[in-house]
Amino acid sequence: MDLLSIKDPSFLKKMNNAELEELSSEIRKFLIEKLSKTGGHIGPNLGVVELTLALHKCFSSPQDKILWDVGHQSYVHKILTGRAAQFDSLRQYKGLCGFPKMSESIHDVWETGHSSTSLSAAMGMAISRDIKGESNFVIPVIGDGALTGGMALEALNHIGDSQKNITVILNDNEMSIAPNVGALHNVLSKLRTAGKYKWAKDELEYLLKKIPAVGGKLASTAEKVKDSLKYLLTSGVFFEEMGFTYFGPIDGHNFNDLFENFQYAKKTDGPVLLHVITKKGKGYSPAEDDRIGTWHGIGQYKIETGDIIKSVNSAPSWSSLVSETVRKLARKDKRIVAVTPAMPVGSKLEKFAEEFPDRFFDVGIAEQHAATMAAGLATQKMKPFLAIYSTFLQRAYDQVLHDICRQNLNVFIGVDRAGLVGADGETHQGVFDISFLRHLPNMVLMMPKDENEGQHMVYTALKYDDGPISLRFPRGNGYGVPMDSELKQIPIGTWEILRKGTDATILTFGTTIPMAMEAALILEKQGVSVQVVNARFIKPLDEAMLYNIFKKGMPVLTIEEAILQGGFGSAILEYAHDQGFHNAMIERVGIPDKFIEHGNVNELLNEIGMTTDKIALKLHSMLPEKKKRA
Amino acid sequence: MDLLSIKDPSFLKKMNNAELEELSSEIRKFLIEKLSKTGGHIGPNLGVVELTLALHKCFSSPQDKILWDVGHQSYVHKILTGRAAQFDSLRQYKGLCGFPKMSESIHDVWETGHSSTSLSAAMGMAISRDIKGESNFVIPVIGDGALTGGMALEALNHIGDSQKNITVILNDNEMSIAPNVGALHNVLSKLRTAGKYKWAKDELEYLLKKIPAVGGKLASTAEKVKDSLKYLLTSGVFFEEMGFTYFGPIDGHNFNDLFENFQYAKKTDGPVLLHVITKKGKGYSPAEDDRIGTWHGIGQYKIETGDIIKSVNSAPSWSSLVSETVRKLARKDKRIVAVTPAMPVGSKLEKFAEEFPDRFFDVGIAEQHAATMAAGLATQKMKPFLAIYSTFLQRAYDQVLHDICRQNLNVFIGVDRAGLVGADGETHQGVFDISFLRHLPNMVLMMPKDENEGQHMVYTALKYDDGPISLRFPRGNGYGVPMDSELKQIPIGTWEILRKGTDATILTFGTTIPMAMEAALILEKQGVSVQVVNARFIKPLDEAMLYNIFKKGMPVLTIEEAILQGGFGSAILEYAHDQGFHNAMIERVGIPDKFIEHGNVNELLNEIGMTTDKIALKLHSMLPEKKKRA
Repeated sequence: MDLLSIKDPSFLKKMNNAELEELSSEIRKFLIEKLSKTGGHIGPNLGVVELTLALHKCFSSPQDKILWDVGHQSYVHKILTGRAAQFDSLRQYKGLCGFPKMSESIHDVWETGHSSTSLSAAMGMAISRDIKGESNFVIPVIGDGALTGGMALEALNHIGDSQKNITVILNDNEMSIAPNVGALHNVLSKLRTAGKYKWAKDELEYLLKKIPAVGGKLASTAEKVKDSLKYLLTSGVFFEEMGFTYFGPIDGHNFNDLFENFQYAKKTDGPVLLHVITKKGKGYSPAEDDRIGTWHGIGQYKIETGDIIKSVNSAPSWSSLVSETVRKLARKDKRIVAVTPAMPVGSKLEKFAEEFPDRFFDVGIAEQHAATMAAGLATQKMKPFLAIYSTFLQRAYDQVLHDICRQNLNVFIGVDRAGLVGADGETHQGVFDISFLRHLPNMVLMMPKDENEGQHMVYTALKYDDGPISLRFPRGNGYGVPMDSELKQIPIGTWEILRKGTDATILTFGTTIPMAMEAALILEKQGVSVQVVNARFIKPLDEAMLYNIFKKGMPVLTIEEAILQGGFGSAILEYAHDQGFHNAMIERVGIPDKFIEHGNVNELLNEIGMTTDKIALKLHSMLPEKKKRA
Repeated sequence: MDLLSIKDPSFLKKMNNAELEELSSEIRKFLIEKLSKTGGHIGPNLGVVELTLALHKCFSSPQDKILWDVGHQSYVHKILTGRAAQFDSLRQYKGLCGFPKMSESIHDVWETGHSSTSLSAAMGMAISRDIKGESNFVIPVIGDGALTGGMALEALNHIGDSQKNITVILNDNEMSIAPNVGALHNVLSKLRTAGKYKWAKDELEYLLKKIPAVGGKLASTAEKVKDSLKYLLTSGVFFEEMGFTYFGPIDGHNFNDLFENFQYAKKTDGPVLLHVITKKGKGYSPAEDDRIGTWHGIGQYKIETGDIIKSVNSAPSWSSLVSETVRKLARKDKRIVAVTPAMPVGSKLEKFAEEFPDRFFDVGIAEQHAATMAAGLATQKMKPFLAIYSTFLQRAYDQVLHDICRQNLNVFIGVDRAGLVGADGETHQGVFDISFLRHLPNMVLMMPKDENEGQHMVYTALKYDDGPISLRFPRGNGYGVPMDSELKQIPIGTWEILRKGTDATILTFGTTIPMAMEAALILEKQGVSVQVVNARFIKPLDEAMLYNIFKKGMPVLTIEEAILQGGFGSAILEYAHDQGFHNAMIERVGIPDKFIEHGNVNELLNEIGMTTDKIALKLHSMLPEKKKRA
């Protein structure tokens, strides 16, 4: 059928299995083709084609609420809810979002991006339904990786106890983004291999027939009871203990198996958990064969060969620069260990893990645990490197505050994907970290101007012994600058003058330095001499340099690729007024008080007004009248 | 023995059970007496007397690391580690901290205050031990309440999988602060009633003998197998599934039972979980009989009668004012529901729970789930009131950002215990919420000047339909001001002039208003006319009023009982410079960039320099020279 003609999923009700199989193939073909041009989360979506079709056939969205945890697996749902035509613009500026979005469709009842939120939201929706006396189904679809996130477990605990009617679909593909870890993963592994089994508390007779070693007539040896006990241990007891009726394992690519179990689930009172086994990348062999997560989210590729089209930039990625410098230093310092919450590939820690398997810890999607475990390590004089994306560090705010900063422990936080991240959009923009880290006592926060300074900052961080220190760095690749062979410590709280000038000063750091340098050049041509400072320490500030700048009475413009409220520019305002420079001409450029959607970073910066031209204009407007006229 | 003479716990090694029983009595007597004068966490500590003695007898602190989760149950540990003499100063300024504190003792290896951190920290310590090739025990002591916190579950998942040697003591008293909730609680209930049972994976023969219905010769009816299955379900399977060797239930007031199980645990490889049953308040009947949590943490009381000595202030507590206003409004608006993470008593929601049992949700210690569940409710056009302490809201930062603010949902957050909290100290000060809420797009943040304005703000919040809205209010009681009978909406973003003046302006809100008014009076006597503004909306600001103030060129002093970095004062600086008031004389008073320890709030304010006199002096110093001389 023509996928572009789909308006809503109601047409599925009349389809038979053969038609659904056919539609599945068409959807896979569509996704493989479209995503080869736009990039996107191909692996997760190819894995849930049949599951999504089955959900929309057996349930009635939007009355029944389908919540996509994390949400990068919602492409099939988007096709079935009338958005196929927009896939050429997937994850592009003003185009189709890569995650569920209420403004796109009434079928998107919950927006996601960060993981493990769907069970809590589902509980809220179920409570609301019951108060209103309605009877719809609430169906969170959560991966086995997302299930290890603490808030998902909190929700499981509450839902199980409440006995609310909630239909949890556990989409078990044995991966989160990288392969999964943790005891829960082991529980699921046992379940997967335990064979088909349905559990119902009051149906013991039924149960007994299904237990192979017990069967109709009871076995008489300890050995056989042992088998049946083992069987019990691998039969959903974990979820039963949590108060759920467990169905599974279910073949997530078999419509009959899905339909049958959905029907069971619909008739069951109280919370149910449907354990659906799917294969990431199903139907496209390069993605299907991926064991480390390369095909989880990806850029352009050649369909026939599965060759990934590399970006032209051959400079190392920032993640790689930081993690590889940590690895180099770990050879000489046994105290160094690396911790990642489920991002070994994204954070480029594979080589570290290979070289130091005993000093590498992928804790799964568990940012809070990762941060506090790092704190625990630091109490024992270890040197933990916590590699974490800016947006996911939000999950560990209290742990950074209460456990790391309050105890002033030597944890080195590598804040990856800081600043605008582009295609992943508003749930993933790393624009809050300055505002939420800067107000924490004891925290040192820095950002490098290029890879070379980056490697020195890693060295500085791992040599630093006075408490927590954070290094934020952007998504993507460096500039390919020459690298010093000798690493050196950068004195904490010192800035660097990149360009001398006498009429005005720009204070900035990281990705916005080139913009500042160009704006300075523009003004130079207008006879204005602009100083540009690499304000590489966001906290503490270089107070000596700041004092001199304000003493001279120069206008100061701050630029940051981060939210303005409480950010770096605010720190400069605070300094100036605290030091009595009440006449200082200070203006701030950065991200305004709103959420920034997906798009190419340059398009987003343009939308915000963070461009070289506008900065030059703004700086010019700050000059004294006589200078303006000059 | 003389408790004051104890230097370290090594003396316990030689004690026999009779001596330990005697010591237990002495410690209980000591605690009951001391705490009747100082107040403190009496219930939790009376519950762990034998457990703490047994731990210090069987293990060797500080080589063996004992971590007290939450930490309010560490008083017995403090006595045994040489701090009995300091109990007169418990929780007082410069006195003994109510929580573990590294600076007090080498036996305090991990500082706590917020719950559920000990397992993650223990994992860090165990990793460090193994890398260094050491062999000490790591022993987190965690309550059944704290176990439901997401990060504890994340850690359980990681520890179980890692098979590290960690000795988890689950201190199960069936309460967190209030009685516990959640499916895990039900799991524990089953375990408690299941009788004595030790589980070891490879000791199936042993196991079979212990299963009553199976016994030596196997039963032959389905009924009997059903019994044995039930038994299995209540025998630690949950924790076994998570990868732990489970011991328990253990009588936490019986030394032999404790010793025997500690010995088993010491010999077991991999992580173990010792399920210890204790009774909160044990040995003091008023505390022992408490079923709602009154005796969890308490002020002064009369030992003989258990009468609690009420504070002289008869005005309603802020928590009560807010929760009772919500209750009143809930009668007319069925959309209003209340959510608390384990603080029904602290947040004074008992009456709401009684009147609206179907619209009240205590989700246990699970702040993240609470916030996102509220978001889920709001998607369905409900009006959730999330009652949460400022310091615990830190745990839900990402949920407030990503789920509530980003989706711009109508969640009303009651930010309780905002500002300095006093005796609970640095882990509990509610001083960060302005800085971490103010930079979130869509958030409205307000604080009332008194109870009457407080009730109007509750009304305003529940009438507000444009997104999230937070009301912060302090710990303790109101002023007893007259209350309007009619509730009214306060226009969002409007301030109120409390006192007119022409020479300078103080912008402040909430608890610091009286200080500002008094400072204004002092200056009046010196011929300076000070305007005082109730800046009740911290976000959005009253821009019209601000514009007028700056237009007039008045010096502006901001006062906030909150961390200065990124706070309200910074918002004023941002506004002034964004609007081009680059000559504005603005200074900020608030909490400096450090953690503030425990003590009476006035003592702490004095230490910080937030006093009427200093504020008057500061404001005077900001005046133009001619005015100063006037």
